[in-house]
Amino acid sequence: MSLLIVGSVAFDGIETPHGKRPRILGGAATYISLAASFFTDTGVVAVVGDDFGADDLAVFARRGVDTAGIERAAGKSFFWAGVYSADMNDRTTLDTQLNVFADFQPKIPSGYEGYTHLFLGNIDPGLQRSVQTQMQKAQVVGGDTMNFWISGQPEELKKTIAGWHMLLINDSEARQLSGEYNLQKAAAKIHAMGPQTLVIKRGEHGATLYRGGKVFAVPGFPLEIVRDPTGAGDCFAGGFMGYLASCGEVSEAALRRAMVYGSVMGSFCVEQFGTERLQSLTRAEVDERYRHFRELMHFD
Amino acid sequence: MSLLIVGSVAFDGIETPHGKRPRILGGAATYISLAASFFTDTGVVAVVGDDFGADDLAVFARRGVDTAGIERAAGKSFFWAGVYSADMNDRTTLDTQLNVFADFQPKIPSGYEGYTHLFLGNIDPGLQRSVQTQMQKAQVVGGDTMNFWISGQPEELKKTIAGWHMLLINDSEARQLSGEYNLQKAAAKIHAMGPQTLVIKRGEHGATLYRGGKVFAVPGFPLEIVRDPTGAGDCFAGGFMGYLASCGEVSEAALRRAMVYGSVMGSFCVEQFGTERLQSLTRAEVDERYRHFRELMHFD
Repeated sequence: MSLLIVGSVAFDGIETPHGKRPRILGGAATYISLAASFFTDTGVVAVVGDDFGADDLAVFARRGVDTAGIERAAGKSFFWAGVYSADMNDRTTLDTQLNVFADFQPKIPSGYEGYTHLFLGNIDPGLQRSVQTQMQKAQVVGGDTMNFWISGQPEELKKTIAGWHMLLINDSEARQLSGEYNLQKAAAKIHAMGPQTLVIKRGEHGATLYRGGKVFAVPGFPLEIVRDPTGAGDCFAGGFMGYLASCGEVSEAALRRAMVYGSVMGSFCVEQFGTERLQSLTRAEVDERYRHFRELMHFD
Repeated sequence: MSLLIVGSVAFDGIETPHGKRPRILGGAATYISLAASFFTDTGVVAVVGDDFGADDLAVFARRGVDTAGIERAAGKSFFWAGVYSADMNDRTTLDTQLNVFADFQPKIPSGYEGYTHLFLGNIDPGLQRSVQTQMQKAQVVGGDTMNFWISGQPEELKKTIAGWHMLLINDSEARQLSGEYNLQKAAAKIHAMGPQTLVIKRGEHGATLYRGGKVFAVPGFPLEIVRDPTGAGDCFAGGFMGYLASCGEVSEAALRRAMVYGSVMGSFCVEQFGTERLQSLTRAEVDERYRHFRELMHFD
């Protein structure tokens, strides 16, 4: 089984209380694909500018990610810069330059129609739907969205997620999308919109799976040092979808393990800036932290 | 085994988005003892005024709580009133009348020296220490405190908790007490102050146990309706200490089960106003929710 990810590949400028990186590799599809690559064959569809170098592409290649779907366009790559608060629970955007991403029209390379799993990163809902239309054979379709689309294109977004098996969003997005503050009620309303599997990501507080009337909650991993929260939610999505693609079934048991693998990947991500930790990470470390999650959550 | 609780028995005026109760039974020792009574023999040491009626005492009696240690003093009982925000994550105090609680000098009735477990609710640290001195036979001593004592009497407080086996506080108190924002680092510093078992309560996000280098995290229980958060943390403490007293050992496995029983009791508490839900609750419901926590947290 295999996972195709569509979304942003970008550069980020990041400042946290632990340091500063003026321009490093970022973007949701970058984090998702690097995290997923620990579990399954992974490909990316994205657009970058002519400032995107061989070194940047090599980060994907070293993790075995298929980058044939990363289109090069004339101009600069998407750039975002932000600074985190002292407790890193808030961040202020300093700069957003959409650049080539503004005209992104995802093109599925020939040969990509065989991907069994599809994850639609946070882009225009209409584009997400057009990608899904081109990937009719995908057995499992999941995706993400954000407040910008929830408030700006609510009807278009609902049409899009109606066709998804899985929606992975954070708590404030779940509240906004459903109009319900209580997350149990929010989950029920979102199920009624289409996705029968809902994952609500809650940052340092963990993540919760809602499906078929059952709830499964994974706590945040207790870390002594969090250097940069950027990409944690995307790494969760990558670990979650990557594990699901690897095991080929969508049972309750598999989804629960996927929740833990997602949490594992998110917890590693924040240990260093940007994709740094993902670049040094090994599968053995992933499996060791999975066992730590068991220790963290197990009782007799 | 048995549990003695020292703390406040009071009246509360509570307003939440779900309703209003101008004057109902409250106080930390009330919640703690009612919750603990589902697990073990429980007694309370507190002071009330002459406005404390037979109906109020009957609430304890119906749960089998020994109230010989509830002293009656001339004057009015401790009264607190507050209003919760729309999302119930914040509350504003409208009124605090210490009344007879201002001169509270805990007196341990004769016959109480046999209690095996002692929980020192949030009162003046000097008084907490004087109670512990009178209860030399207690095998397990746990307690709570709050920001008022952490900032107002830091040295006195540290002298007091140095003698405790267990400290149960919330996340902001743990940060304030330790001077560390990161809860892993906070836990290490608090262990060094004495209590080798630390429980950090995180409200709707659950609770975390730190002990011997190991961490155990219980998520908040997914509830569709939370009517009144008052007393949830105290019910957690009551369930936690009550269960420990009932099983008589302080192993890692027992502590983990105690964390879940604490979470069970806190989750019931918030379903109704004040002690209402505790008054209608049955042991069968407690055990059923314990099983729900297993379903919420279990993965293979």
